[in-house]
Amino acid sequence: MTTGTRTRLSPAERRSQLLDLGVRLLATRSVDELSIDMLAEEAGISRGLLYHYFGNKHDFHEAVVRRAADDLIAQTAPPASGDPIQRLAASMEAYLSYVENNYEGYLSLVKGAVGGNDTLRAIYDESRAALTDRIFSEDAQGLLIKDTAVTRLLVRSWSAMSEELVLAWVADPGDVTRERVLELLTSSLPALVAASGE
Amino acid sequence: MTTGTRTRLSPAERRSQLLDLGVRLLATRSVDELSIDMLAEEAGISRGLLYHYFGNKHDFHEAVVRRAADDLIAQTAPPASGDPIQRLAASMEAYLSYVENNYEGYLSLVKGAVGGNDTLRAIYDESRAALTDRIFSEDAQGLLIKDTAVTRLLVRSWSAMSEELVLAWVADPGDVTRERVLELLTSSLPALVAASGE
Repeated sequence: MTTGTRTRLSPAERRSQLLDLGVRLLATRSVDELSIDMLAEEAGISRGLLYHYFGNKHDFHEAVVRRAADDLIAQTAPPASGDPIQRLAASMEAYLSYVENNYEGYLSLVKGAVGGNDTLRAIYDESRAALTDRIFSEDAQGLLIKDTAVTRLLVRSWSAMSEELVLAWVADPGDVTRERVLELLTSSLPALVAASGE
Repeated sequence: MTTGTRTRLSPAERRSQLLDLGVRLLATRSVDELSIDMLAEEAGISRGLLYHYFGNKHDFHEAVVRRAADDLIAQTAPPASGDPIQRLAASMEAYLSYVENNYEGYLSLVKGAVGGNDTLRAIYDESRAALTDRIFSEDAQGLLIKDTAVTRLLVRSWSAMSEELVLAWVADPGDVTRERVLELLTSSLPALVAASGE
């Protein structure tokens, strides 16, 4: 460990550090608002060096959004063992925290993906698919939900519901507590599966 | 009633007829693909006359999308009386039919609204709010769902879920039957409300 403000990093480590900074900047601004100039200023390095790492603005945005999506998938991983509902609850708590902490960037990813930006769409679809697949792969015995064509459609729809619920609540919590939102997120999937009769 | 192919219509009737034609054209194309030229050709009238009715391309798109949203709200109105679940089922059947019959236009409305087109956003938000409010106004006694801050959030989220479910299924039905989709759409709201404990 080096404790100084300057550390000697490999190019890969330096690039990774810059991506983390880019993701942090997305907490309070949209992908479109994130510029190489801004990152250069925050990182205290030249624009030229940033272009060395990221090529052009499009590649820069893609790399930052991909890192943000990877962070979302990593942070929402359920605990390795435990009761299925408690594992789901832990994952949903992490999802809510992620959206709270990265609101502007996450919202711009959703908007850009649905609105027709092909790069954002691809990353969004991949991360949605990863999160959906995980519901099934983490529950390979089907304790919470069996893997059928109907439950696949249901989990995909429930993801859209969870996204709307969290984005709407973070934008305007009104009288609804955070704890209540977590209860709604966690109870909804088992309730939908039970109602479907699958 | 006039039975000939040419009827003498008032300007308001003529405009309304042209909007209906515009909505029909949205069944198989996006809002962006819908042009005044195309409508003129389909209607067999001059572009000049269409500009007389709709001003410019932006106003034309806005008028057609507004008509499409009004059609959606009108067509999905539940029957005036009956069992709450049966009324909900009838409304969801009409919603599914609407999306099936107007797929491209509806999809482009959703994409445009989420993607940042302000006009489409406003129309989309208004129709979403109208559909959501109707869940509560049609059930003023709270037989199906009480009106609380939590259930408002829940119904809004369930709308997003229903939209995703229907759009995903129409795009790729796989092994899931239409009847099964209707069951999922209708059973999901009561299940979510019951699970929420509201």
